Amino acid sequence: MATREDGRADDELRPITLTRGFTSHPAGSVLVEFGNTRVMCTASVEAGVPRWRKGSGLGWLTAEYAMLPGATHTRNSRESVKGKVSGRTQEISRLVGRSLRACIDLAAIGENTIALDCDVLQADGGTRTAAITGAYVALADAVTYLGAHGRLADPQPISCAIAAVSVGVVDGRVRLDLPYEEDSRAEVDMNIVATDTGTLVEVQGTGEGATFPRSTLDAMLDSALAGCERIFDVQREALAAPYPGELPGA
Amino acid sequence: MATREDGRADDELRPITLTRGFTSHPAGSVLVEFGNTRVMCTASVEAGVPRWRKGSGLGWLTAEYAMLPGATHTRNSRESVKGKVSGRTQEISRLVGRSLRACIDLAAIGENTIALDCDVLQADGGTRTAAITGAYVALADAVTYLGAHGRLADPQPISCAIAAVSVGVVDGRVRLDLPYEEDSRAEVDMNIVATDTGTLVEVQGTGEGATFPRSTLDAMLDSALAGCERIFDVQREALAAPYPGELPGA
Amino acid sequence: MATREDGRADDELRPITLTRGFTSHPAGSVLVEFGNTRVMCTASVEAGVPRWRKGSGLGWLTAEYAMLPGATHTRNSRESVKGKVSGRTQEISRLVGRSLRACIDLAAIGENTIALDCDVLQADGGTRTAAITGAYVALADAVTYLGAHGRLADPQPISCAIAAVSVGVVDGRVRLDLPYEEDSRAEVDMNIVATDTGTLVEVQGTGEGATFPRSTLDAMLDSALAGCERIFDVQREALAAPYPGELPGA
Amino acid sequence: MATREDGRADDELRPITLTRGFTSHPAGSVLVEFGNTRVMCTASVEAGVPRWRKGSGLGWLTAEYAMLPGATHTRNSRESVKGKVSGRTQEISRLVGRSLRACIDLAAIGENTIALDCDVLQADGGTRTAAITGAYVALADAVTYLGAHGRLADPQPISCAIAAVSVGVVDGRVRLDLPYEEDSRAEVDMNIVATDTGTLVEVQGTGEGATFPRSTLDAMLDSALAGCERIFDVQREALAAPYPGELPGA
Amino acid sequence: MATREDGRADDELRPITLTRGFTSHPAGSVLVEFGNTRVMCTASVEAGVPRWRKGSGLGWLTAEYAMLPGATHTRNSRESVKGKVSGRTQEISRLVGRSLRACIDLAAIGENTIALDCDVLQADGGTRTAAITGAYVALADAVTYLGAHGRLADPQPISCAIAAVSVGVVDGRVRLDLPYEEDSRAEVDMNIVATDTGTLVEVQGTGEGATFPRSTLDAMLDSALAGCERIFDVQREALAAPYPGELPGA
Amino acid sequence: MATREDGRADDELRPITLTRGFTSHPAGSVLVEFGNTRVMCTASVEAGVPRWRKGSGLGWLTAEYAMLPGATHTRNSRESVKGKVSGRTQEISRLVGRSLRACIDLAAIGENTIALDCDVLQADGGTRTAAITGAYVALADAVTYLGAHGRLADPQPISCAIAAVSVGVVDGRVRLDLPYEEDSRAEVDMNIVATDTGTLVEVQGTGEGATFPRSTLDAMLDSALAGCERIFDVQREALAAPYPGELPGA
Repeated sequence: MATREDGRADDELRPITLTRGFTSHPAGSVLVEFGNTRVMCTASVEAGVPRWRKGSGLGWLTAEYAMLPGATHTRNSRESVKGKVSGRTQEISRLVGRSLRACIDLAAIGENTIALDCDVLQADGGTRTAAITGAYVALADAVTYLGAHGRLADPQPISCAIAAVSVGVVDGRVRLDLPYEEDSRAEVDMNIVATDTGTLVEVQGTGEGATFPRSTLDAMLDSALAGCERIFDVQREALAAPYPGELPGA
Repeated sequence: MATREDGRADDELRPITLTRGFTSHPAGSVLVEFGNTRVMCTASVEAGVPRWRKGSGLGWLTAEYAMLPGATHTRNSRESVKGKVSGRTQEISRLVGRSLRACIDLAAIGENTIALDCDVLQADGGTRTAAITGAYVALADAVTYLGAHGRLADPQPISCAIAAVSVGVVDGRVRLDLPYEEDSRAEVDMNIVATDTGTLVEVQGTGEGATFPRSTLDAMLDSALAGCERIFDVQREALAAPYPGELPGA
Repeated sequence: MATREDGRADDELRPITLTRGFTSHPAGSVLVEFGNTRVMCTASVEAGVPRWRKGSGLGWLTAEYAMLPGATHTRNSRESVKGKVSGRTQEISRLVGRSLRACIDLAAIGENTIALDCDVLQADGGTRTAAITGAYVALADAVTYLGAHGRLADPQPISCAIAAVSVGVVDGRVRLDLPYEEDSRAEVDMNIVATDTGTLVEVQGTGEGATFPRSTLDAMLDSALAGCERIFDVQREALAAPYPGELPGA
Repeated sequence: MATREDGRADDELRPITLTRGFTSHPAGSVLVEFGNTRVMCTASVEAGVPRWRKGSGLGWLTAEYAMLPGATHTRNSRESVKGKVSGRTQEISRLVGRSLRACIDLAAIGENTIALDCDVLQADGGTRTAAITGAYVALADAVTYLGAHGRLADPQPISCAIAAVSVGVVDGRVRLDLPYEEDSRAEVDMNIVATDTGTLVEVQGTGEGATFPRSTLDAMLDSALAGCERIFDVQREALAAPYPGELPGA
Repeated sequence: MATREDGRADDELRPITLTRGFTSHPAGSVLVEFGNTRVMCTASVEAGVPRWRKGSGLGWLTAEYAMLPGATHTRNSRESVKGKVSGRTQEISRLVGRSLRACIDLAAIGENTIALDCDVLQADGGTRTAAITGAYVALADAVTYLGAHGRLADPQPISCAIAAVSVGVVDGRVRLDLPYEEDSRAEVDMNIVATDTGTLVEVQGTGEGATFPRSTLDAMLDSALAGCERIFDVQREALAAPYPGELPGA
Repeated sequence: MATREDGRADDELRPITLTRGFTSHPAGSVLVEFGNTRVMCTASVEAGVPRWRKGSGLGWLTAEYAMLPGATHTRNSRESVKGKVSGRTQEISRLVGRSLRACIDLAAIGENTIALDCDVLQADGGTRTAAITGAYVALADAVTYLGAHGRLADPQPISCAIAAVSVGVVDGRVRLDLPYEEDSRAEVDMNIVATDTGTLVEVQGTGEGATFPRSTLDAMLDSALAGCERIFDVQREALAAPYPGELPGA
């Protein structure tokens, strides 16, 4: 039977780890690893909201994704130096923000802003889905932090967990959680974002030089949703542990 | 029975028109209308390809989408004056480009570049799907133009037609081809891009403040794919007519 | 006798048409055509004025001119993507704004801002003079709209009509309303903006690779002022008709 | 009889001085003063031309105008720090370049580029006309420099002198060479650029909050052309003197 | 006796660690820690040099420094999103580049470019001196990598080690290696960059709201130079160990 | 004995002149010359302070440094046109601001802002040190101006004079006040900023392709501090003279 270069079965995830308290200043700070993909996800809390939202009683959540120059096989140039953010970066930042806003009641956090930053330290495919998965855990810690400081309007602002995974067609087979080597030659590429209550937040599927029948779409969804279930377990386990080290702002 | 504000059935498209030869300089120039949404789609042909592609023998196809300031209910400020392109604009430009590259054999057009420009004159929901639908027709005319000038390496570079449509959940019902009034309050919003050979090019579904079960995703796909079939008929009819007025470059 | 390539006499305008209500969201929306030059001119009304003008009781009027990428023979690249507006574009935007401010009493419109947008759909010479001519009609409709909504401090804020036309020396002859073919090889190029009360608003004459005696300047002014008289007739006729279709905001 | 605040007659110029060799690195360096307006004009020579002109055998001439932050009554912020050049600055830079290109045969200077920089040290009205007047002298010195270094294809590339002056309507009277105090309240404002062979290069007249009859235009042209004659005398006298100090590159 | 908040003596460094092979794509990748300050330093190798250096036979070395948004107590906004790099960031990037160029013979590395990226994961004072210290180790690994791939013109391009440390006057006392808490209230702040051959590369001392006598400068230099000696030991020890894990490009 | 190309002894300054009242609009305006280096330093006073400082009762002082395009041997391109300020320019602007803030009590000037602009008209080495030296005199005049207009909270806001000079190692010898010819080939380059009360404000020493022993640093400091003493004399003499011409705002 055809196996993948890294020995996984088609429907198998890479090893996923979530390290909470990775740095100490932000309210939430998580290093997420999907195999060799490593993303630092921080959730910073700031009092106040953007001007257009002031006085609404509602909080706000933003997200920014970026790739460090040394994260890729060949160094990618720094967007701050180029003076503008690429379309790809903006697209992923918007996706991360939308995905995480789906699980939080912004009225419950009062007029506070949570800024999620997902910086890719090392890229090996699936950086956006790792970012969403890690950002959820950082967000959960930031909400705990807000609660501990008496800054929540409602004690339970998070309604569900959020996880994401990639899936694609490689060598004619539907495969889960593609590393760079597979991603770069996939015929179809899909990312899904799901909740642990069994619903979808976002589905983005793209034919890369090929188009795909609906049956392929269905098979990719099956595989990705099953993968998300396993990621929710990893998230739950990580969040069940006590916060490592000193709490931020303690 | 609950009907839509504009009287349409849930699975009914708005009236779609495609006006070829809308302006005379570009090799293809189409005004596409989905109800009150009006987008001018031009396909300009330039000899040569970007530097990174020179000498490959392959052509290139790019796309840019933009909204005129007066296109929306409230004037939207001009991106050239702001000095940067929004994330939304970049995201749609990239989507249009990817979608149209799915139907063309870039080896067949030789080292020529086709630039698709989709400028929204009037916006009433579904501007990106109208843009893709109109850009396909402009592209077809540009390819005919290249052929008439002996600049095609292969006489048939287009392998299929491309059309797109939006679908969403509004008032709890799956509805096709949302106008602004429905789009702005949709619970789920999806855009699909399909080929007339029965396959998908792109699927993008997003919960807007709500998440959605897989059954809803399936119902939206059913509706959108049926809608695309009708759009392919409109495209075929438009392209069957002789080119209106003088051919560009004649 | 030497006639022009398009058969016109030296002092003859191209056919001019003004289509009001070209799009439906802005308070004024006009498609102006000078022969093959086509410009969409919209006048959008926004409550409030820029910060430096707040509390003055005066309104404000701004203008922006732009060329769509497909408007020219060879595609011109998009200024939003380049991230800056060219000197030419800024120069014309400033000219349009100054010209139209000459006919309106900004105290009479109260603290409202009228934004004029002139987007060239197809360019064949004289785009800036067509833009001014069309913007006047869009402005008149926007003022009517403000009046109908009870937002005018004074019922008659417009003191005169504004029109503009180009004139130049081509093949040694003074010629009116130059199309691209003549404009690109003119020895002298002039644009004038005039009022229907017999005065001038702006005179801009430039030797293009040649200098010119004062007698030529005088002959160009004669021709251009006579041309403006005929344009005022076209404007008057267009504005005498009832507003086509539904009024904006009705 | 009404005289002007500074005691001049309506048709009288301010004292004009031209200091050649003001700085020593550029091939031409002139401090031009029109009363209290002081502009440093340098002409730098660089071997080679912009890419689009390579191999044509033709030279090129560019111009940039700028205002130092401390030049005005109230400090004006630095455009390099704002990150973009204002429309006004670009407009004047373009005007200076066009004006000086009118007197030089670019074939005669071979594939060299002359860059004119006009930096306003102190502004008191008429900075753009002073800049053009001074830039002509700097250009003449730069051409002499090119000749002395054997870099001219033709020994006499300059066909005429170029000067410029402002004129306007202030307090209902046509007045020449407006200082800031008059310029800021002028009803009509005009700049003309002329040659010493009796022709015009550029005419730009603008009603500032007022429109003007053609008879006023004629009176302004009379006054400005007479003023230019006197400026040509000042230029001739300045250029008749031996070059002060060491020649650049000597 | 007055001790420091973290218990150190005035001339004592914070614990310094250097983790080689921190990520796997770049030729050198080091996590450097000075107490709670943590900087990821990568050295990426690219074939070729900037255009102005082509054909010289010389290599090039550049450096970029940046702060991740979550690195500071209060989130700092992302420079790529702001669209420009701050003066502070540029200043430090230039300092890092100059400092490391002092130890390498650019002829010996042939026409290759080494790009050093120093990204601050967590900031607690002394980020620029930690960056230089860590970048030296990443550079050493990158040079080893070049040698292993036969891309060195000379086998020994590095002539000395480079380390840097901060020193300042806090509470009237000269103190070494300031954490944020001390740095933010230091009266004088100095950074020195030194070589392990006993010489200085860079000295930058600044009075922060206070000026300082030369005797203070001397005392600061004594302390900093002694500190650098201890840092060279840490570097030597780190580089003496075998490369952890797989070599890049192996 | 080896003398310098311009005949000076190693520890000799170039002739230094300070021309007050160089232009008339700013509250302070000084032309400073260090040999052929000429910098125009203006100090503009604006009522109010930046937003983050409002209501503090404290004033503010900023500085901007720039090089005119024609100031250097080969024309340097204009930063406003390039759309961004170079790292070097920012670094020097920050240095000038920090240096001058060291001598002024910002509480004493009330909520006013003093903007120092240092524009290099002609560059021959040492432009940043000339800028600081001249800016001090312009600042002193601006403070006198504030006092004369009753806008000082305390009559004596300046606590000491500030001067700066460069020193370096050229041909193996420590030399003071380097012109371009020496600066461009110096092995070590240092700038110091000092007060006339015997203290240091800033010390910046850099090995340029070479590193340097501490004894060299000491010798450079000796030379530079002695040089500053002589510059303070020139400043004192310049400020002792009555203000030339009319006072600004008189």
